[in-house]
Amino acid sequence: MDNLIPNQPNQSTLFEPKPSVLVGDSSDIYFHRTMSILRNEGINPNVVIEFFPQRSGVLCGINEAMALLVKVLPESDREVWALPEGGYVEAKEVSLRIKAPYNSICLYETAISGMLSSSTGWATAARECVDAAEGIPIVSFGARHVHPNISGNMDYASIIGGCESCSTILGARLAGVTPSGTMPHALILIVGDTIKAIQAFDKHIPKEIPRIALVDTFKDEVEESINIAKVMRNKLEGVRLDTPKERGGVTPDLVKELRAKLNLADAHHVQIFVSGGITPDRIREFIKSGAEIDGFGVGSFITRARPNDFTADIHQIEGKPIAKRGRLPGITDNPRLERLL
Amino acid sequence: MDNLIPNQPNQSTLFEPKPSVLVGDSSDIYFHRTMSILRNEGINPNVVIEFFPQRSGVLCGINEAMALLVKVLPESDREVWALPEGGYVEAKEVSLRIKAPYNSICLYETAISGMLSSSTGWATAARECVDAAEGIPIVSFGARHVHPNISGNMDYASIIGGCESCSTILGARLAGVTPSGTMPHALILIVGDTIKAIQAFDKHIPKEIPRIALVDTFKDEVEESINIAKVMRNKLEGVRLDTPKERGGVTPDLVKELRAKLNLADAHHVQIFVSGGITPDRIREFIKSGAEIDGFGVGSFITRARPNDFTADIHQIEGKPIAKRGRLPGITDNPRLERLL
Amino acid sequence: MDNLIPNQPNQSTLFEPKPSVLVGDSSDIYFHRTMSILRNEGINPNVVIEFFPQRSGVLCGINEAMALLVKVLPESDREVWALPEGGYVEAKEVSLRIKAPYNSICLYETAISGMLSSSTGWATAARECVDAAEGIPIVSFGARHVHPNISGNMDYASIIGGCESCSTILGARLAGVTPSGTMPHALILIVGDTIKAIQAFDKHIPKEIPRIALVDTFKDEVEESINIAKVMRNKLEGVRLDTPKERGGVTPDLVKELRAKLNLADAHHVQIFVSGGITPDRIREFIKSGAEIDGFGVGSFITRARPNDFTADIHQIEGKPIAKRGRLPGITDNPRLERLL
Amino acid sequence: MDNLIPNQPNQSTLFEPKPSVLVGDSSDIYFHRTMSILRNEGINPNVVIEFFPQRSGVLCGINEAMALLVKVLPESDREVWALPEGGYVEAKEVSLRIKAPYNSICLYETAISGMLSSSTGWATAARECVDAAEGIPIVSFGARHVHPNISGNMDYASIIGGCESCSTILGARLAGVTPSGTMPHALILIVGDTIKAIQAFDKHIPKEIPRIALVDTFKDEVEESINIAKVMRNKLEGVRLDTPKERGGVTPDLVKELRAKLNLADAHHVQIFVSGGITPDRIREFIKSGAEIDGFGVGSFITRARPNDFTADIHQIEGKPIAKRGRLPGITDNPRLERLL
Amino acid sequence: MDNLIPNQPNQSTLFEPKPSVLVGDSSDIYFHRTMSILRNEGINPNVVIEFFPQRSGVLCGINEAMALLVKVLPESDREVWALPEGGYVEAKEVSLRIKAPYNSICLYETAISGMLSSSTGWATAARECVDAAEGIPIVSFGARHVHPNISGNMDYASIIGGCESCSTILGARLAGVTPSGTMPHALILIVGDTIKAIQAFDKHIPKEIPRIALVDTFKDEVEESINIAKVMRNKLEGVRLDTPKERGGVTPDLVKELRAKLNLADAHHVQIFVSGGITPDRIREFIKSGAEIDGFGVGSFITRARPNDFTADIHQIEGKPIAKRGRLPGITDNPRLERLL
Amino acid sequence: MDNLIPNQPNQSTLFEPKPSVLVGDSSDIYFHRTMSILRNEGINPNVVIEFFPQRSGVLCGINEAMALLVKVLPESDREVWALPEGGYVEAKEVSLRIKAPYNSICLYETAISGMLSSSTGWATAARECVDAAEGIPIVSFGARHVHPNISGNMDYASIIGGCESCSTILGARLAGVTPSGTMPHALILIVGDTIKAIQAFDKHIPKEIPRIALVDTFKDEVEESINIAKVMRNKLEGVRLDTPKERGGVTPDLVKELRAKLNLADAHHVQIFVSGGITPDRIREFIKSGAEIDGFGVGSFITRARPNDFTADIHQIEGKPIAKRGRLPGITDNPRLERLL
Repeated sequence: MDNLIPNQPNQSTLFEPKPSVLVGDSSDIYFHRTMSILRNEGINPNVVIEFFPQRSGVLCGINEAMALLVKVLPESDREVWALPEGGYVEAKEVSLRIKAPYNSICLYETAISGMLSSSTGWATAARECVDAAEGIPIVSFGARHVHPNISGNMDYASIIGGCESCSTILGARLAGVTPSGTMPHALILIVGDTIKAIQAFDKHIPKEIPRIALVDTFKDEVEESINIAKVMRNKLEGVRLDTPKERGGVTPDLVKELRAKLNLADAHHVQIFVSGGITPDRIREFIKSGAEIDGFGVGSFITRARPNDFTADIHQIEGKPIAKRGRLPGITDNPRLERLL
Repeated sequence: MDNLIPNQPNQSTLFEPKPSVLVGDSSDIYFHRTMSILRNEGINPNVVIEFFPQRSGVLCGINEAMALLVKVLPESDREVWALPEGGYVEAKEVSLRIKAPYNSICLYETAISGMLSSSTGWATAARECVDAAEGIPIVSFGARHVHPNISGNMDYASIIGGCESCSTILGARLAGVTPSGTMPHALILIVGDTIKAIQAFDKHIPKEIPRIALVDTFKDEVEESINIAKVMRNKLEGVRLDTPKERGGVTPDLVKELRAKLNLADAHHVQIFVSGGITPDRIREFIKSGAEIDGFGVGSFITRARPNDFTADIHQIEGKPIAKRGRLPGITDNPRLERLL
Repeated sequence: MDNLIPNQPNQSTLFEPKPSVLVGDSSDIYFHRTMSILRNEGINPNVVIEFFPQRSGVLCGINEAMALLVKVLPESDREVWALPEGGYVEAKEVSLRIKAPYNSICLYETAISGMLSSSTGWATAARECVDAAEGIPIVSFGARHVHPNISGNMDYASIIGGCESCSTILGARLAGVTPSGTMPHALILIVGDTIKAIQAFDKHIPKEIPRIALVDTFKDEVEESINIAKVMRNKLEGVRLDTPKERGGVTPDLVKELRAKLNLADAHHVQIFVSGGITPDRIREFIKSGAEIDGFGVGSFITRARPNDFTADIHQIEGKPIAKRGRLPGITDNPRLERLL
Repeated sequence: MDNLIPNQPNQSTLFEPKPSVLVGDSSDIYFHRTMSILRNEGINPNVVIEFFPQRSGVLCGINEAMALLVKVLPESDREVWALPEGGYVEAKEVSLRIKAPYNSICLYETAISGMLSSSTGWATAARECVDAAEGIPIVSFGARHVHPNISGNMDYASIIGGCESCSTILGARLAGVTPSGTMPHALILIVGDTIKAIQAFDKHIPKEIPRIALVDTFKDEVEESINIAKVMRNKLEGVRLDTPKERGGVTPDLVKELRAKLNLADAHHVQIFVSGGITPDRIREFIKSGAEIDGFGVGSFITRARPNDFTADIHQIEGKPIAKRGRLPGITDNPRLERLL
Repeated sequence: MDNLIPNQPNQSTLFEPKPSVLVGDSSDIYFHRTMSILRNEGINPNVVIEFFPQRSGVLCGINEAMALLVKVLPESDREVWALPEGGYVEAKEVSLRIKAPYNSICLYETAISGMLSSSTGWATAARECVDAAEGIPIVSFGARHVHPNISGNMDYASIIGGCESCSTILGARLAGVTPSGTMPHALILIVGDTIKAIQAFDKHIPKEIPRIALVDTFKDEVEESINIAKVMRNKLEGVRLDTPKERGGVTPDLVKELRAKLNLADAHHVQIFVSGGITPDRIREFIKSGAEIDGFGVGSFITRARPNDFTADIHQIEGKPIAKRGRLPGITDNPRLERLL
Repeated sequence: MDNLIPNQPNQSTLFEPKPSVLVGDSSDIYFHRTMSILRNEGINPNVVIEFFPQRSGVLCGINEAMALLVKVLPESDREVWALPEGGYVEAKEVSLRIKAPYNSICLYETAISGMLSSSTGWATAARECVDAAEGIPIVSFGARHVHPNISGNMDYASIIGGCESCSTILGARLAGVTPSGTMPHALILIVGDTIKAIQAFDKHIPKEIPRIALVDTFKDEVEESINIAKVMRNKLEGVRLDTPKERGGVTPDLVKELRAKLNLADAHHVQIFVSGGITPDRIREFIKSGAEIDGFGVGSFITRARPNDFTADIHQIEGKPIAKRGRLPGITDNPRLERLL
């Protein structure tokens, strides 16, 4: 996996912590009980907590965690070190280290672990696609397959992982890119004809949005593409193949045939985009076949990515090394960490 | 998988749609463009949309989808049919059917598919654990491994899948149960001694919360359990084994040894709870071994569940059967659907 | 495998031995040398030779072997026993036993083994398809994938194995059936339009030949089928799906969709035939899926069948049991054999 | 696989097309119907047809196809390009391209595809053996396991694949070599003694045929070989081991033992030939073991070779590029093709 | 595995403990140190030690352990319970329980575990052969593949496992049977001829020893067997096939051929014994093939059996339950144990 | 496998042949009969016998065989060549060649094959561990899992294979090393406390024996190790981890944690030894993990090693090359053999 770190906007200002997270509603209940006990006992030691992932991957979620930490840690008594958002992280490598009074962090351990676990899982899956694609752009298309409360976070993580754009407005906003998409089958079904649908699109949608027709709704993809190319001429930027599994899905041979027949019809400028069940293996297969593809839309390969479970361990209390059974006491040396707060 | 449908509170009132969902920020961008085109063209047909999953499983997310639909569909012109929340759904079985003017549903197709996909994935994984456990209670413990924006939804789905309780306040609230938990390793590390920690717990936490000690922090689990049992006597409800992988994890033999040595120390009443990497296979292994277990905490088996991707298809427009290539036109017959709106 | 023995014409009269076989040009050279030695030595004992296959299967080639044996064995001194053409034969079961002066059979051992080996291989493969198809008719379509010198024999063996018909004139003649076929892609390409092609077919081909259109040449199969059904109406007997692998091949879902959309277009009477890479496994998959299919065309599954190697052993010479090392001396008992000559 | 092209006689003159092929009896019936339709419609365009195989291999059948094409294509209006007989062909590589009026080729597409499919399959299997044998000669012995109508073609293809000789008279004649063979077990069984059999062979068979004794009929192979070597002395060219599977088959250790014991008996000049279930893997095993072998007889590895299915596609009609769905229109560029007619 | 317990002589009197075992030379050194410490500290508690195996199998070694225990445990203060020699034992089932002053058993834990581990491993492997053989007698032939210091113990264990006899004098003596064997290849090589060797055997060996000829030394096994049968007539009890791997080993087909040809030579009374690489799988294969076999000689399948590692745990000290971490304290209930001392 | 040959004492004087071996009680019975026949016939030729193994490995048993051969072969008429004890031997390589009157060796073929088979198997397994350990010392701990009659031989072979020491007195004596061990769980259970046990050890055992405490009997291994280190200080040489499988076994993480926490407790000098189910794979895993280990105890990986079956063949009788079927006659050339007698 390439150790590519994309240019990032200063995203942390965009991640506004949800009220339910701030009040601890998403925390494990036992942290509330722990707070209650420690407060009653008058204990609030300064601790060092370290977060590390189970597996290697592309780290994501640091920016969002920082947006929370700046709100909850006491400014006078806090230190936060982290690896860079979008950088590579090894299995078990400490990625985030927090030094603070325990009571200021207790209710957020659950939330921070969760942000890192989900986001790192998505970003890593996206990167696998990007690495496989050898420069062909990839767009994150999976919003429909994850809960809407985090589809924006998933799209943001995909872009951190190297995708060029994504389909949700929220994800694009968080990542500082323009959202991307073509048209749904629904539009064509309602308009009743693919050519009329792309013509309506062309009529009503601002010129800067590329005209990309979805060509598998009613007719043979190649026949439909050539028909559209004849009508739309140079206004047509490309076509998207999304042939359903029931009809064999999109194959390298279909792409090659479409390219050859578009060229024969003097439509060399029409690009070909491919979506539907795209995985790194299928991307490699397309590339190896020699089919010329101008972009991939990836959905469930990213949305079904397993969270990369992060664990939080206390390694120091009031300056003294400590650890539970099974873990090594004391601050873990990691010169790659940078101090953020 | 048992076709068990748990008693449910009237949850749909609890699922308040997020503003970002209502304004369509979590929608694919092309639905906004579709809205724009259709509005400009003056088209808004009455359509029938059907949602179906890729794989079989325990349906979840219907209640949340209903909370959204009651807000966005025009009361005068809507029909909604669905399978019951928590019931079994076949692969490709229509689970939700909406009849409405297209413009009232267009921006929510993405969100509804996502709710059903994620929630059905989690509920199904939970049910696999519940089925394996043959009556031993299971608590959802995985909040720390998913993004906090949906940890409550994950916990809710786990309970729909049959878990007895969960660790987040939000999940418990949505599902109408009491949240459940013991104590974190952090409390014991900070207090510095497991016995003192459980004593502090006992002193400050309301009596109705069961006293369950975490026993693998500093000492051999069996030695620690017996020590605690001697001090806490009948106030001790149970102990939780969460031995880390680095120390071999929790094994059936450890549970048997702990039970035998607790009994030898006259602590027959002390229950044994087990957590850490629990899966249906490991549950079956524990049960087959004859080890006596009083409860399991399950985390990442549920949180890493693949979303069960739901697809939305238009099957009828203005009363006429239609379908894109690869799909069957017309309303799909499913006598199991019940009309909800 | 069903032990079905189809009704057979008296085929043996149709198998006219080739001159090259009669003069021994297809024999191993060492049999010519053996003939020369034995003649010079004045030896010509009466022998019993038995033929058995390596594997179990559907016996085929007996009729053709008989056509040769009646020509070459001396009428006054010959006995021939065999299992029935098209019946089941066990691995190593004696299927043909010849008693004759050695010099009358010496030059034909190679040819007879070869007839049985190839034909039994093909018939067995055909039977596997027939068994899988549970009554749906199968036509042998593989002539283009075997040498034309034996494509008729292959088609004959397929029908012995249970196929309803075959595509070659010679095979059909040997098996006593009517050859079967639709139209090649070449006709449609030359005529330039599928509808015109089926109309030309309808105009020039005798009425008793069913009108079955090939629908994957230029357009989406479903669109083309409906167009043809509208034009040909009740004259159309069926359509054949032969979608190439490059376009996903024929799938159960495609058949279901075509059936549903034909029915919606009031073309319930139009049958659906399927070809292209059909194997017993794919036949079972189609049947299990519930797709309604009216016939399969099978090609390379039969043509690529391994010959079921037959071995010929001398078991008796001048009435005395004998055998080479590794074989059992004396006539092998097999009450299933029937005397034919 | 080595890209070896053996010296070839001008075989095409030897392949006399069968009358049944010339009249189209081995053609698919639908080509007869196509002829009828086109003739009635008065259509007979000039077309380009290309033939390509499914898999890579050693091309064979071109010479036989040429013998047919020179007879059926109009001399004034034909072009034929092909790759060389016996050369390597890639998967899907165009191997034969015909430009002619469609009606002159229509009835022969089936036959030509079949010749190429079967022959290329056999030649490729033979080449795998030859490559494995690293210079040790291989003789094609499989006539008894294929239908006698094509055993000569199979033997011809084996020699095109690199075999030194073959056992059928017809195959040897087509390939321009001397047929090869030793003696059958039958001769020894009838004579009743291996020594007497080789002596009779020596007495009656021309001196130029090598004396090679088959030594596994009655006695231990080593004992028999030494006995024969003592009697035949320098007249003995070699022995053939054909030990049946029932007695363990021929093993590298048996060959080594025989060589050592022949040498100890001063019969260094006696060569050792091996047959019975020989495959490339077993050839490699023999060679790796260090056993000294002077020749292999290969049978069913070649006869059971899967045909390498050839497909024929129209790519141009009256000078215009065309193709059915799934194929690329226009003449396929292949600079390796040479014009033959 | 059948739960067969063979009739046993009172073997324990035959197992005379070796002096090196009695003085503790085969004990782990740390037991000597333990003895020294406890003696110096004046500690010698009464303990209960339990022995259990890793895997299930046929228990063997109890008799030999008893012979040691009666010598070393104080008669006044000892209890020994055990499962029966030759009976089935479950994985982890307590098989031997000793109650005695610790110092009387300390130096023998290593030896007793070792006796049980090795012997149970061998007996179990023997039983697998016996079970596979369905009543055909099996003789243990493996002495040459284990160290001579324990070849007798191995043979004894094989008979406990169900073998009919064994080849070593010592093993037969321990098990109370007559040793069994035929003749070595060496005898035949030295005498120079198999017939002369069996004649010399017949001349000099007492009549009650069966005449069984080894027939694979010089000639084809079948030829040799028939030759011997003709010379020895009714004095010949049987022949042994021991064909080496280099010549294909003994196969079911060889046995069938030998039986058929012996019968044809009127030697129905000559039995057939088989040896060389015999395993339960090969025994099953022989039986399934229908070959008639009168006895198997089994060697390395038994000698290569993995020891079934026995573990010894202290479960009680001075009447109080105890156990190390990982084990259950107190005497393990096993009603199948019988008191022996 | 390294071709390392360890320094060896003149062990052959230590291997005193057992009386039962000398009288032939461990011989196959048929050798006694052979002796009887040959004596009666007055035959006693001078023969050459060669021994070779089935598989490659580390040769062991030569010294013990020599101790027997010097006793039984006539001094005036014997030659013995062998490969060196502890050297590498190829599969089927002649490792021992004996030339002597047949009657002097006949009764010992079984015993010598057995010594070589068992010992070579053990030595080879030990070498696999030594090679994996890359210089970390290995001690043979498996006496408890093999019969006490050969536990010394097994330990001797382990040291020939490269182990540093072994746990039995007899093995150490044969190999000329000091036996090695720590303390058994039994000592700690009886003393009732690990600290008291190591203190008693320290009090009563000579100073030159290293103090190594077994730390998994009662408490958490790390806690116990630190407690002992505090009490024993510099007298403590190391601790042994032998955590049972029921408690997860010894893992690399446990070793790392123990090392870190010992160092934190200023006990850098305390070494860590590991035992329990150690195999070459697990050794490699420990080393790859970076855990610092000071020694491994290996038991059942060595004791369960399959004997490497040696075969003895006569290759020459009275100076003439001979061999049975399947073997090569005459003395086998092997320049690596050295003459020992």
